Amino acid sequence: MSGCVTVVGLGPGDPSLLTGAARLALDGAEDLIGYLPYVARVPERPGLVRHASDNRVEVDRARHALSLAASGRRVAVVSGGDPGVFAMAAAIFEAVEHGEPGWRDLAITVEPGITAMLAAAARLGAPLGGDFCAMSLSDNLKPWPVVTARLEAVLRADFVVALYNPISTARPWQLGAALDLAAGIRAPDTPVMFARAISRPDEAIRVTTLAEAPAAPADMATMVILGASGTRLIPRTGKAPFVYTPRSVPGVA
Amino acid sequence: MSGCVTVVGLGPGDPSLLTGAARLALDGAEDLIGYLPYVARVPERPGLVRHASDNRVEVDRARHALSLAASGRRVAVVSGGDPGVFAMAAAIFEAVEHGEPGWRDLAITVEPGITAMLAAAARLGAPLGGDFCAMSLSDNLKPWPVVTARLEAVLRADFVVALYNPISTARPWQLGAALDLAAGIRAPDTPVMFARAISRPDEAIRVTTLAEAPAAPADMATMVILGASGTRLIPRTGKAPFVYTPRSVPGVA
Repeated sequence: MSGCVTVVGLGPGDPSLLTGAARLALDGAEDLIGYLPYVARVPERPGLVRHASDNRVEVDRARHALSLAASGRRVAVVSGGDPGVFAMAAAIFEAVEHGEPGWRDLAITVEPGITAMLAAAARLGAPLGGDFCAMSLSDNLKPWPVVTARLEAVLRADFVVALYNPISTARPWQLGAALDLAAGIRAPDTPVMFARAISRPDEAIRVTTLAEAPAAPADMATMVILGASGTRLIPRTGKAPFVYTPRSVPGVA
Repeated sequence: MSGCVTVVGLGPGDPSLLTGAARLALDGAEDLIGYLPYVARVPERPGLVRHASDNRVEVDRARHALSLAASGRRVAVVSGGDPGVFAMAAAIFEAVEHGEPGWRDLAITVEPGITAMLAAAARLGAPLGGDFCAMSLSDNLKPWPVVTARLEAVLRADFVVALYNPISTARPWQLGAALDLAAGIRAPDTPVMFARAISRPDEAIRVTTLAEAPAAPADMATMVILGASGTRLIPRTGKAPFVYTPRSVPGVA
Protein backbone atom coordinates (compact mmCIF):
# COMPACT_ATOMS: atom_id res chain seq x y z
CA MET A 1 0.00 0.00 0.00
CA SER A 2 1.78 3.13 -1.21
CA GLY A 3 -1.06 5.62 -0.85
CA CYS A 4 -0.62 8.87 1.00
CA VAL A 5 -2.43 12.04 2.01
CA THR A 6 -0.77 15.44 1.86
CA VAL A 7 -2.75 18.33 3.31
CA VAL A 8 -1.58 21.30 1.30
CA GLY A 9 -1.77 24.98 2.21
CA LEU A 10 -2.52 27.05 -0.88
CA GLY A 11 -1.85 30.38 0.86
CA PRO A 12 -4.11 33.40 0.48
CA GLY A 13 -4.67 33.12 -3.25
CA ASP A 14 -1.90 34.34 -5.52
CA PRO A 15 0.15 31.40 -6.80
CA SER A 16 3.38 33.25 -5.94
CA LEU A 17 2.51 32.81 -2.26
CA LEU A 18 2.69 28.99 -2.42
CA THR A 19 5.80 27.32 -1.06
CA GLY A 20 7.90 25.15 -3.34
CA ALA A 21 7.02 22.11 -1.23
CA ALA A 22 3.29 22.78 -1.58
CA ARG A 23 3.62 23.05 -5.34
CA LEU A 24 5.59 19.79 -5.46
CA ALA A 25 2.87 18.03 -3.47
CA LEU A 26 0.21 19.27 -5.90
CA ASP A 27 2.30 18.20 -8.88
CA GLY A 28 2.64 14.68 -7.47
CA ALA A 29 -1.02 14.13 -6.57
CA GLU A 30 -3.38 11.73 -8.32
CA ASP A 31 -6.50 12.95 -6.48
CA LEU A 32 -7.30 16.48 -5.41
CA ILE A 33 -9.87 16.99 -2.66
CA GLY A 34 -11.23 20.18 -1.19
CA TYR A 35 -13.77 22.96 -1.03
CA LEU A 36 -14.64 23.97 -4.59
CA PRO A 37 -12.92 27.41 -4.77
CA TYR A 38 -9.66 25.89 -3.49
CA VAL A 39 -9.76 22.95 -5.92
CA ALA A 40 -10.41 25.49 -8.69
CA ARG A 41 -7.09 27.19 -7.92
CA VAL A 42 -5.13 24.11 -8.99
CA PRO A 43 -4.78 23.81 -12.78
CA GLU A 44 -6.24 20.71 -14.44
CA ARG A 45 -3.80 18.20 -15.88
CA PRO A 46 -3.94 14.64 -17.20
CA GLY A 47 -3.75 12.11 -14.39
CA LEU A 48 -5.28 14.40 -11.77
CA VAL A 49 -8.78 13.56 -10.56
CA ARG A 50 -10.48 16.56 -8.96
CA HIS A 51 -13.07 16.04 -6.22
CA ALA A 52 -14.56 19.41 -5.32
CA SER A 53 -17.10 19.57 -2.51
CA ASP A 54 -19.28 22.11 -0.80
CA ASN A 55 -18.26 23.93 2.38
CA ARG A 56 -19.00 22.48 5.85
CA VAL A 57 -18.49 18.83 4.94
CA GLU A 58 -14.91 18.75 6.20
CA VAL A 59 -15.08 15.35 7.89
CA ASP A 60 -16.75 13.67 4.88
CA ARG A 61 -14.01 15.15 2.73
CA ALA A 62 -11.35 13.90 5.15
CA ARG A 63 -12.79 10.37 5.19
CA HIS A 64 -12.92 10.35 1.41
CA ALA A 65 -9.25 11.37 1.24
CA LEU A 66 -8.20 8.70 3.74
CA SER A 67 -10.20 5.98 1.93
CA LEU A 68 -8.58 6.86 -1.38
CA ALA A 69 -5.12 6.82 0.21
CA ALA A 70 -5.85 3.46 1.84
CA SER A 71 -6.65 2.10 -1.63
CA GLY A 72 -3.20 3.18 -2.80
CA ARG A 73 -3.81 6.63 -4.27
CA ARG A 74 -1.63 9.72 -3.78
CA VAL A 75 -4.11 12.28 -2.46
CA ALA A 76 -3.72 16.03 -1.96
CA VAL A 77 -6.28 17.74 0.26
CA VAL A 78 -6.22 21.47 -0.36
CA SER A 79 -6.95 24.31 2.05
CA GLY A 80 -6.70 28.05 1.58
CA GLY A 81 -4.05 29.67 3.78
CA ASP A 82 -2.41 27.20 6.14
CA PRO A 83 -4.17 23.85 6.56
CA GLY A 84 -3.48 23.83 10.31
CA VAL A 85 -5.24 27.15 11.00
CA PHE A 86 -9.05 26.82 10.99
CA ALA A 87 -8.80 24.55 7.97
CA MET A 88 -8.58 20.93 6.83
CA ALA A 89 -5.67 19.47 8.83
CA ALA A 90 -7.59 19.11 12.11
CA ALA A 91 -10.52 17.52 10.21
CA ILE A 92 -8.14 14.95 8.72
CA PHE A 93 -6.78 13.95 12.12
CA GLU A 94 -10.29 13.83 13.62
CA ALA A 95 -11.20 11.41 10.84
CA VAL A 96 -8.05 9.37 11.48
CA GLU A 97 -8.75 9.09 15.21
CA HIS A 98 -12.35 7.99 14.74
CA GLY A 99 -11.92 6.01 11.52
CA GLU A 100 -10.43 2.74 10.25
CA PRO A 101 -7.50 1.52 12.41
CA GLY A 102 -5.38 1.17 9.25
CA TRP A 103 -5.64 4.90 8.55
CA ARG A 104 -3.19 5.60 11.40
CA ASP A 105 -0.43 3.88 9.43
CA LEU A 106 -0.96 5.94 6.29
CA ALA A 107 1.69 8.44 5.28
CA ILE A 108 -0.06 11.68 6.21
CA THR A 109 1.85 14.91 5.88
CA VAL A 110 0.92 18.56 6.16
CA GLU A 111 2.50 21.21 3.91
CA PRO A 112 2.21 24.56 5.64
CA GLY A 113 1.02 27.70 3.88
CA ILE A 114 0.73 31.45 4.38
CA THR A 115 -2.33 31.82 6.57
CA ALA A 116 -4.64 34.83 6.11
CA MET A 117 -3.41 36.77 9.15
CA LEU A 118 0.21 36.64 7.94
CA ALA A 119 -0.76 37.72 4.44
CA ALA A 120 -2.92 40.55 5.81
CA ALA A 121 -0.24 41.65 8.27
CA ALA A 122 2.39 41.77 5.52
CA ARG A 123 0.20 44.07 3.40
CA LEU A 124 -0.50 46.38 6.33
CA GLY A 125 3.01 46.66 7.79
CA ALA A 126 3.61 44.66 10.96
CA PRO A 127 0.43 44.71 13.07
CA LEU A 128 1.31 41.29 14.58
CA GLY A 129 4.69 42.60 15.81
CA GLY A 130 3.88 41.81 19.47
CA ASP A 131 2.05 38.93 21.15
CA PHE A 132 -1.08 37.97 19.23
CA CYS A 133 -3.97 35.50 19.08
CA ALA A 134 -5.88 33.86 16.28
CA MET A 135 -9.53 33.12 17.00
CA SER A 136 -12.40 31.88 14.91
CA LEU A 137 -15.53 33.95 15.53
CA SER A 138 -17.72 31.13 14.27
CA ASP A 139 -20.03 29.54 16.79
CA ASN A 140 -20.80 26.59 14.52
CA LEU A 141 -18.26 24.43 16.37
CA LYS A 142 -17.99 26.07 19.79
CA PRO A 143 -20.53 27.75 22.05
CA TRP A 144 -20.77 31.54 21.68
CA PRO A 145 -20.07 32.09 25.42
CA VAL A 146 -16.71 30.35 24.88
CA VAL A 147 -15.96 32.73 22.00
CA THR A 148 -16.75 35.81 24.08
CA ALA A 149 -14.90 34.56 27.17
CA ARG A 150 -11.78 33.93 25.08
CA LEU A 151 -12.05 37.24 23.29
CA GLU A 152 -12.49 39.13 26.53
CA ALA A 153 -9.46 37.39 28.06
CA VAL A 154 -7.12 38.32 25.22
CA LEU A 155 -8.48 41.85 24.89
CA ARG A 156 -7.85 42.46 28.59
CA ALA A 157 -4.36 40.94 28.32
CA ASP A 158 -3.59 43.35 25.44
CA PHE A 159 -2.94 40.85 22.66
CA VAL A 160 -3.39 41.80 19.03
CA VAL A 161 -6.33 39.64 17.89
CA ALA A 162 -6.79 38.18 14.42
CA LEU A 163 -10.42 37.19 13.88
CA TYR A 164 -11.02 34.39 11.35
CA ASN A 165 -14.52 33.66 10.01
CA PRO A 166 -15.80 37.01 11.29
CA ILE A 167 -19.14 36.94 9.53
CA SER A 168 -21.31 34.98 7.10
CA THR A 169 -24.91 34.96 5.89
CA ALA A 170 -25.76 32.45 8.61
CA ARG A 171 -23.82 34.37 11.30
CA PRO A 172 -24.64 38.03 10.69
CA TRP A 173 -24.37 39.50 14.22
CA GLN A 174 -21.28 37.90 15.78
CA LEU A 175 -18.75 40.40 14.43
CA GLY A 176 -20.79 43.33 15.72
CA ALA A 177 -21.01 41.68 19.14
CA ALA A 178 -17.24 41.11 19.15
CA LEU A 179 -16.54 44.74 18.23
CA ASP A 180 -18.93 45.88 20.99
CA LEU A 181 -17.04 43.74 23.48
CA ALA A 182 -13.74 45.20 22.27
CA ALA A 183 -15.12 48.76 22.52
CA GLY A 184 -15.83 48.17 26.20
CA ILE A 185 -12.20 47.24 26.84
CA ARG A 186 -9.96 49.07 24.36
CA ALA A 187 -9.72 52.76 23.45
CA PRO A 188 -11.99 54.08 20.66
CA ASP A 189 -8.96 55.06 18.54
CA THR A 190 -7.44 51.55 18.63
CA PRO A 191 -6.54 50.59 15.03
CA VAL A 192 -8.77 47.91 13.50
CA MET A 193 -7.90 46.44 10.12
CA PHE A 194 -10.24 44.77 7.63
CA ALA A 195 -8.26 42.79 5.06
CA ARG A 196 -10.30 41.10 2.35
CA ALA A 197 -9.14 38.54 -0.25
CA ILE A 198 -5.47 39.39 0.16
CA SER A 199 -3.43 38.80 -3.02
CA ARG A 200 -6.56 38.07 -5.07
CA PRO A 201 -7.98 40.38 -7.77
CA ASP A 202 -10.70 41.62 -5.40
CA GLU A 203 -8.28 42.46 -2.56
CA ALA A 204 -9.53 45.29 -0.35
CA ILE A 205 -7.90 46.74 2.75
CA ARG A 206 -9.37 49.21 5.19
CA VAL A 207 -7.60 50.65 8.22
CA THR A 208 -10.06 52.12 10.67
CA THR A 209 -10.56 52.56 14.41
CA LEU A 210 -12.54 50.60 16.95
CA ALA A 211 -15.08 53.45 17.08
CA GLU A 212 -15.61 53.35 13.30
CA ALA A 213 -15.20 49.59 12.78
CA PRO A 214 -18.91 48.64 12.97
CA ALA A 215 -19.49 50.61 9.74
CA ALA A 216 -16.80 48.76 7.77
CA PRO A 217 -17.94 46.13 5.28
CA ALA A 218 -16.91 42.53 6.01
CA ASP A 219 -17.68 39.12 4.57
CA MET A 220 -16.46 35.54 4.73
CA ALA A 221 -13.28 36.45 2.84
CA THR A 222 -12.37 39.18 5.35
CA MET A 223 -9.80 38.92 8.13
CA VAL A 224 -10.33 41.39 10.95
CA ILE A 225 -7.31 42.38 13.06
CA LEU A 226 -7.89 44.24 16.33
CA GLY A 227 -4.84 46.26 17.34
CA ALA A 228 -3.41 46.23 20.87
CA SER A 229 -2.85 49.34 23.01
CA GLY A 230 0.58 49.81 21.44
CA THR A 231 -0.46 49.37 17.79
CA ARG A 232 0.45 52.47 15.78
CA LEU A 233 -0.22 54.08 12.41
CA ILE A 234 2.45 55.81 10.35
CA PRO A 235 0.66 58.30 8.11
CA ARG A 236 1.94 58.74 4.56
CA THR A 237 1.06 61.34 1.96
CA GLY A 238 -1.16 59.92 -0.75
CA LYS A 239 -0.91 56.34 0.47
CA ALA A 240 -2.46 54.09 3.09
CA PRO A 241 -0.70 54.35 6.46
CA PHE A 242 1.67 51.66 7.65
CA VAL A 243 0.30 49.82 10.71
CA TYR A 244 2.63 48.17 13.19
CA THR A 245 2.80 46.92 16.75
CA PRO A 246 6.13 47.73 18.40
CA ARG A 247 8.13 44.80 19.72
CA SER A 248 8.54 46.54 23.08
CA VAL A 249 6.06 46.94 25.88
CA PRO A 250 6.91 49.93 28.11
CA GLY A 251 8.30 49.14 31.54
CA VAL A 252 11.55 47.27 30.91
CA ALA A 253 14.32 48.79 33.04
CA MET B 1 14.76 57.67 -6.20
CA SER B 2 13.96 54.06 -7.10
CA GLY B 3 15.25 52.37 -3.96
CA CYS B 4 13.10 49.96 -2.03
CA VAL B 5 13.09 47.69 1.01
CA THR B 6 11.52 44.25 0.94
CA VAL B 7 11.37 42.43 4.26
CA VAL B 8 11.54 38.78 3.28
CA GLY B 9 10.41 35.76 5.28
CA LEU B 10 12.80 32.85 4.72
CA GLY B 11 10.57 30.31 6.45
CA PRO B 12 11.89 27.76 8.93
CA GLY B 13 15.01 26.77 7.01
CA ASP B 14 14.56 24.41 4.09
CA PRO B 15 14.55 26.33 0.80
CA SER B 16 11.45 24.40 -0.34
CA LEU B 17 9.47 26.27 2.32
CA LEU B 18 10.06 29.69 0.74
CA THR B 19 7.25 31.23 -1.27
CA GLY B 20 7.82 32.06 -4.91
CA ALA B 21 7.38 35.76 -4.12
CA ALA B 22 10.06 35.62 -1.40
CA ARG B 23 12.49 33.97 -3.79
CA LEU B 24 11.78 36.61 -6.45
CA ALA B 25 12.47 39.39 -3.93
CA LEU B 26 15.81 37.79 -3.03
CA ASP B 27 16.72 37.38 -6.69
CA GLY B 28 16.04 41.07 -7.36
CA ALA B 29 17.95 42.48 -4.38
CA GLU B 30 21.20 44.44 -4.59
CA ASP B 31 21.79 44.47 -0.84
CA LEU B 32 21.00 41.74 1.66
CA ILE B 33 20.69 42.66 5.33
CA GLY B 34 20.03 40.45 8.32
CA TYR B 35 21.20 38.37 11.22
CA LEU B 36 24.19 36.31 10.10
CA PRO B 37 22.60 32.82 9.98
CA TYR B 38 19.72 34.13 7.86
CA VAL B 39 21.99 35.99 5.43
CA ALA B 40 24.02 32.77 5.14
CA ARG B 41 20.93 30.94 3.83
CA VAL B 42 20.87 33.08 0.69
CA PRO B 43 23.39 31.95 -1.94
CA GLU B 44 26.09 34.43 -2.99
CA ARG B 45 25.86 35.83 -6.50
CA PRO B 46 27.47 38.66 -8.48
CA GLY B 47 25.76 41.97 -7.82
CA LEU B 48 24.52 41.06 -4.34
CA VAL B 49 26.17 42.81 -1.40
CA ARG B 50 25.68 40.88 1.85
CA HIS B 51 25.55 42.77 5.16
CA ALA B 52 25.37 40.24 7.98
CA SER B 53 25.05 41.49 11.53
CA ASP B 54 24.89 40.12 15.03
CA ASN B 55 21.63 39.43 16.86
CA ARG B 56 19.87 42.12 18.92
CA VAL B 57 20.77 45.07 16.72
CA GLU B 58 17.47 45.02 14.86
CA VAL B 59 16.92 48.78 14.78
CA ASP B 60 20.48 49.52 13.58
CA ARG B 61 19.92 46.95 10.84
CA ALA B 62 16.58 48.53 9.95
CA ARG B 63 18.10 52.03 9.74
CA HIS B 64 20.89 50.70 7.57
CA ALA B 65 18.37 49.12 5.20
CA LEU B 66 16.30 52.31 4.98
CA SER B 67 19.39 54.48 4.36
CA LEU B 68 20.53 52.23 1.54
CA ALA B 69 17.06 52.28 -0.01
CA ALA B 70 16.93 56.08 0.30
CA SER B 71 20.17 56.20 -1.70
CA GLY B 72 18.48 54.24 -4.48
CA ARG B 73 19.40 50.64 -3.68
CA ARG B 74 17.07 47.62 -3.86
CA VAL B 75 17.39 46.14 -0.38
CA ALA B 76 16.17 42.82 0.98
CA VAL B 77 16.03 42.44 4.77
CA VAL B 78 15.84 38.76 5.69
CA SER B 79 14.15 37.13 8.67
CA GLY B 80 13.73 33.50 9.55
CA GLY B 81 10.10 32.37 9.53
CA ASP B 82 7.68 35.21 8.87
CA PRO B 83 9.12 38.73 9.18
CA GLY B 84 5.98 39.98 10.93
CA VAL B 85 6.12 37.46 13.79
CA PHE B 86 8.75 38.36 16.41
CA ALA B 87 11.12 39.33 13.61
CA MET B 88 12.37 42.23 11.47
CA ALA B 89 9.21 43.81 10.06
CA ALA B 90 8.22 45.63 13.27
CA ALA B 91 11.81 46.88 13.67
CA ILE B 92 11.70 48.34 10.14
CA PHE B 93 8.49 50.26 10.86
CA GLU B 94 9.81 51.46 14.23
CA ALA B 95 12.81 52.85 12.36
CA VAL B 96 10.54 54.45 9.75
CA GLU B 97 8.38 56.14 12.38
CA HIS B 98 11.33 57.57 14.29
CA GLY B 99 13.67 58.16 11.34
CA GLU B 100 14.10 60.49 8.35
CA PRO B 101 10.77 61.91 7.09
CA GLY B 102 11.65 60.77 3.56
CA TRP B 103 11.71 57.13 4.66
CA ARG B 104 7.90 57.12 4.86
CA ASP B 105 7.72 57.55 1.09
CA LEU B 106 10.01 54.62 0.32
CA ALA B 107 8.52 51.51 -1.29
CA ILE B 108 8.53 49.15 1.69
CA THR B 109 6.94 45.74 1.28
CA VAL B 110 6.79 42.64 3.43
CA GLU B 111 6.92 39.15 1.88
CA PRO B 112 5.34 36.72 4.33
CA GLY B 113 6.89 33.40 5.25
CA ILE B 114 6.12 30.18 7.08
CA THR B 115 6.57 31.12 10.73
CA ALA B 116 7.98 28.55 13.18
CA MET B 117 4.66 27.65 14.81
CA LEU B 118 3.09 26.77 11.45
CA ALA B 119 6.09 24.67 10.43
CA ALA B 120 6.13 22.90 13.81
CA ALA B 121 2.37 22.34 13.75
CA ALA B 122 2.54 20.83 10.26
CA ARG B 123 5.16 18.31 11.40
CA LEU B 124 3.18 17.34 14.48
CA GLY B 125 -0.29 17.05 12.93
CA ALA B 126 -2.65 19.92 13.68
CA PRO B 127 -2.02 21.14 17.24
CA LEU B 128 -3.16 24.68 16.29
CA GLY B 129 -6.53 23.37 15.08
CA GLY B 130 -8.48 25.52 17.56
CA ASP B 131 -7.99 29.07 18.83
CA PHE B 132 -4.34 29.79 19.60
CA CYS B 133 -1.89 32.46 20.70
CA ALA B 134 1.69 33.28 19.81
CA MET B 135 3.77 34.80 22.60
CA SER B 136 7.41 35.66 22.95
CA LEU B 137 8.75 34.49 26.31
CA SER B 138 11.59 36.99 26.12
CA ASP B 139 11.60 39.73 28.73
CA ASN B 140 14.22 41.75 26.86
CA LEU B 141 11.54 43.99 25.38
CA LYS B 142 8.64 43.65 27.80
CA PRO B 143 8.46 43.32 31.59
CA TRP B 144 8.27 39.75 32.89
CA PRO B 145 5.02 40.46 34.82
CA VAL B 146 3.41 41.32 31.46
CA VAL B 147 4.60 37.98 30.06
CA THR B 148 3.14 36.02 32.97
CA ALA B 149 -0.14 37.99 33.04
CA ARG B 150 -0.65 37.32 29.32
CA LEU B 151 0.30 33.68 29.63
CA GLU B 152 -2.04 33.16 32.56
CA ALA B 153 -4.91 34.82 30.67
CA VAL B 154 -4.60 32.57 27.63
CA LEU B 155 -4.01 29.43 29.68
CA ARG B 156 -7.21 30.08 31.65
CA ALA B 157 -9.13 30.84 28.45
CA ASP B 158 -7.96 27.47 27.03
CA PHE B 159 -6.00 28.67 24.00
CA VAL B 160 -3.24 26.56 22.51
CA VAL B 161 -0.09 28.61 23.17
CA ALA B 162 2.95 28.79 20.90
CA LEU B 163 5.96 30.09 22.82
CA TYR B 164 8.61 31.85 20.73
CA ASN B 165 12.07 32.62 22.19
CA PRO B 166 11.49 30.20 25.07
CA ILE B 167 15.04 30.16 26.39
CA SER B 168 18.57 31.46 25.79
CA THR B 169 21.86 31.61 27.65
CA ALA B 170 20.90 35.04 28.99
CA ARG B 171 17.34 33.92 29.90
CA PRO B 172 17.75 30.47 31.42
CA TRP B 173 14.79 30.32 33.85
CA GLN B 174 11.83 31.87 32.01
CA LEU B 175 10.69 28.68 30.27
CA GLY B 176 10.67 26.77 33.57
CA ALA B 177 8.63 29.52 35.16
CA ALA B 178 6.16 29.46 32.26
CA LEU B 179 5.77 25.68 32.51
CA ASP B 180 5.22 26.01 36.28
CA LEU B 181 2.50 28.56 35.65
CA ALA B 182 0.88 26.25 33.08
CA ALA B 183 1.08 23.30 35.48
CA GLY B 184 -0.99 25.26 37.99
CA ILE B 185 -3.76 25.77 35.45
CA ARG B 186 -3.80 22.82 33.01
CA ALA B 187 -3.90 19.07 33.59
CA PRO B 188 -0.57 17.24 34.02
CA ASP B 189 -1.25 15.10 30.94
CA THR B 190 -1.78 18.12 28.64
CA PRO B 191 0.34 17.56 25.52
CA VAL B 192 3.39 19.83 25.24
CA MET B 193 5.47 19.83 22.07
CA PHE B 194 9.10 20.84 21.66
CA ALA B 195 9.93 21.43 18.00
CA ARG B 196 13.53 22.35 17.23
CA ALA B 197 15.01 23.59 13.94
CA ILE B 198 12.09 22.35 11.83
CA SER B 199 13.10 21.42 8.26
CA ARG B 200 16.80 21.89 9.03
CA PRO B 201 19.32 19.03 9.26
CA ASP B 202 19.27 19.17 13.07
CA GLU B 203 15.46 19.02 13.33
CA ALA B 204 14.25 17.41 16.57
CA ILE B 205 10.70 16.91 17.78
CA ARG B 206 9.53 15.76 21.17
CA VAL B 207 5.93 15.23 22.22
CA THR B 208 5.63 15.13 25.98
CA THR B 209 3.21 16.17 28.73
CA LEU B 210 3.03 19.19 30.96
CA ALA B 211 4.20 17.03 33.88
CA GLU B 212 7.30 15.86 31.98
CA ALA B 213 8.00 19.05 30.02
CA PRO B 214 10.53 20.60 32.45
CA ALA B 215 12.92 17.72 31.65
CA ALA B 216 12.81 18.29 27.88
CA PRO B 217 15.79 20.01 26.27
CA ALA B 218 15.15 23.41 24.68
CA ASP B 219 17.26 26.16 23.16
CA MET B 220 16.86 29.32 21.07
CA ALA B 221 15.94 27.27 18.01
CA THR B 222 13.08 25.52 19.83
CA MET B 223 9.39 26.34 19.54
CA VAL B 224 7.32 25.15 22.50
CA ILE B 225 3.61 24.53 21.96
CA LEU B 226 1.35 24.07 24.99
CA GLY B 227 -1.76 22.08 24.14
CA ALA B 228 -5.27 23.15 25.21
CA SER B 229 -7.68 20.95 27.18
CA GLY B 230 -8.95 19.41 23.95
CA THR B 231 -5.56 18.69 22.37
CA ARG B 232 -5.23 14.97 21.63
CA LEU B 233 -2.62 12.40 20.68
CA ILE B 234 -3.24 9.64 18.13
CA PRO B 235 -0.80 6.82 18.97
CA ARG B 236 0.79 4.95 16.08
CA THR B 237 2.84 1.79 16.09
CA GLY B 238 6.53 2.48 15.57
CA LYS B 239 6.06 6.16 14.83
CA ALA B 240 5.59 9.42 16.70
CA PRO B 241 1.94 10.10 17.55
CA PHE B 242 -0.09 12.62 15.60
CA VAL B 243 -1.07 15.61 17.74
CA TYR B 244 -4.16 17.65 16.98
CA THR B 245 -6.62 20.04 18.53
CA PRO B 246 -10.20 19.35 17.42
CA ARG B 247 -12.03 22.19 15.72
CA SER B 248 -14.99 21.73 18.05
CA VAL B 249 -15.39 22.76 21.65
CA PRO B 250 -18.05 20.68 23.43
CA GLY B 251 -21.32 22.40 24.22
CA VAL B 252 -22.77 23.33 20.83
CA ALA B 253 -26.41 22.25 20.62
